[in-house]
Amino acid sequence: MSRIAYFGPRGTFTEQAARLLAAGEELVPVETVRLAMTAVREGEADAACVPIENSVEGVVPATLDALSEASPLVAVAETILPIHFSVLTRPGTAQIRTVASHPHALAQVREWLEANLPGVHTVASSSTSAAAVGVLEGDFDAAVCAPVANEHYHLEVLATEVADVTDAATRFLLVRRPGELPEPTGADRTSVVAAAANRTGTLAELLTELAGRGINLTRLDARPTRSNFGEYRFFIDFEGHVAEPRVLDALTALRRHCRTLRFLGSHPRADGTRNTIEAGFGNDDFVEAAVWADAVRKGDMA
Amino acid sequence: MSRIAYFGPRGTFTEQAARLLAAGEELVPVETVRLAMTAVREGEADAACVPIENSVEGVVPATLDALSEASPLVAVAETILPIHFSVLTRPGTAQIRTVASHPHALAQVREWLEANLPGVHTVASSSTSAAAVGVLEGDFDAAVCAPVANEHYHLEVLATEVADVTDAATRFLLVRRPGELPEPTGADRTSVVAAAANRTGTLAELLTELAGRGINLTRLDARPTRSNFGEYRFFIDFEGHVAEPRVLDALTALRRHCRTLRFLGSHPRADGTRNTIEAGFGNDDFVEAAVWADAVRKGDMA
Repeated sequence: MSRIAYFGPRGTFTEQAARLLAAGEELVPVETVRLAMTAVREGEADAACVPIENSVEGVVPATLDALSEASPLVAVAETILPIHFSVLTRPGTAQIRTVASHPHALAQVREWLEANLPGVHTVASSSTSAAAVGVLEGDFDAAVCAPVANEHYHLEVLATEVADVTDAATRFLLVRRPGELPEPTGADRTSVVAAAANRTGTLAELLTELAGRGINLTRLDARPTRSNFGEYRFFIDFEGHVAEPRVLDALTALRRHCRTLRFLGSHPRADGTRNTIEAGFGNDDFVEAAVWADAVRKGDMA
Repeated sequence: MSRIAYFGPRGTFTEQAARLLAAGEELVPVETVRLAMTAVREGEADAACVPIENSVEGVVPATLDALSEASPLVAVAETILPIHFSVLTRPGTAQIRTVASHPHALAQVREWLEANLPGVHTVASSSTSAAAVGVLEGDFDAAVCAPVANEHYHLEVLATEVADVTDAATRFLLVRRPGELPEPTGADRTSVVAAAANRTGTLAELLTELAGRGINLTRLDARPTRSNFGEYRFFIDFEGHVAEPRVLDALTALRRHCRTLRFLGSHPRADGTRNTIEAGFGNDDFVEAAVWADAVRKGDMA
């Protein structure tokens, strides 16, 4: 059985994602995103499950930073969870006067609380799980939690699928030490982080290398590097798999432009969206062009 | 006196920024970033003060989203605040057993608490100000707050400039309805939001227009649009002022590429960094080229 570190505590959405990405494995909650990855880097865990982006809040900066520091890790799988909550109470609670959760979660169910528990007093807790523990211990009457929380706390479920924004979702990654890559599926995502000088036009050059190969971006984030003022790290996600000739060709070109370029993985997309391949940009076009260029170099063709 | 809406509650870093950006004006706390901007859009306030990015947490998605919706608003000024906290107690508190704050603030002073108040029990609150109110009311022994909080609550200051990461900072904007622009200073920032089709190479095209005019990016964020799946909004900040010919020329070119392009303002940079102008990319070069092209069109030159 593998040992999978995840950003804890127990009973959160990240545990729920880890159960999907590593079903049947030993799941170990770790206090921060960085420490979950450290556990993998130091061999204490085989993989880590961490959140990477949320459709409302955007990217998770701690995950980007931890992916780009220390020794390389690669993403081998992803999953997307809809963010809706369960409201949990102690069995037999007659009236709900107080409801606790992390302030982020309370903000995401405010309208639901106004409509369904009017006048309830909201209390901030350090995590959604801590709110469930508080309910167990009698500190509050109800807790707003990830659905998986109740697998640990066995409270009464007052409501499920609670969310003011019904299409909010978070994407999670499973990362490992570098090794065998997942097979390409035709609906893949490749991620890199590029450190480049803060010079006019740097990012335009990188993106033009991808565009010139017909490769579609799926996400781009720029983060200042802490250590070197004026230097940026660009986190670039795009369609395709490094096993494809066109993606390998693009990575080779990016490598020339960047002070450092780190490969963060190629893996199937959770949403199943197929790679965009426009006319003249297929892998066979790249293979054919390479065969032609090789023949030219040998003097067999012109 | 102008009426300035800011993202409240009272006693937070955003109030502190509003005091710097609109000294002597009437400052009105508003519950969310979006509602602060709505107050300006509807004429209930003359300007709004909102956070735009933090050096640790990254961009503030709610601010980007609110800037790009409804009627246009433009940023006319910015300020950068170092994020360090004051620890406040009731006068005469002999021993500190509990310390409260928003979970984000508690996370940023965890090491300080371990070193200076070992064994203290931390309690989550809905905001840093709510923690100060809780101390006033005897719920907790100490609160971790923005320095400005004590102008409202008059507690005893146990410590100031408390922060585990000493260089964390947040940038704030003052936004108004469109009107007269601030004068260019040679150390300016211009911001736009571009909605473009999710087509391979779109972003590379936009950035190449800037790079080809020697214009340096200062920030780039891509956000999915909620209403139109597969369409992205690019928030692009770059050096310079729309009153400069090279910047005006770049904006004109961007306009052609985008489904919609919204101008979010040109204003002096809080960090005072002068605009990068490389040889051949000065405003005089753009003026001279336009004079030459005009003469060519008239048949006076070739």
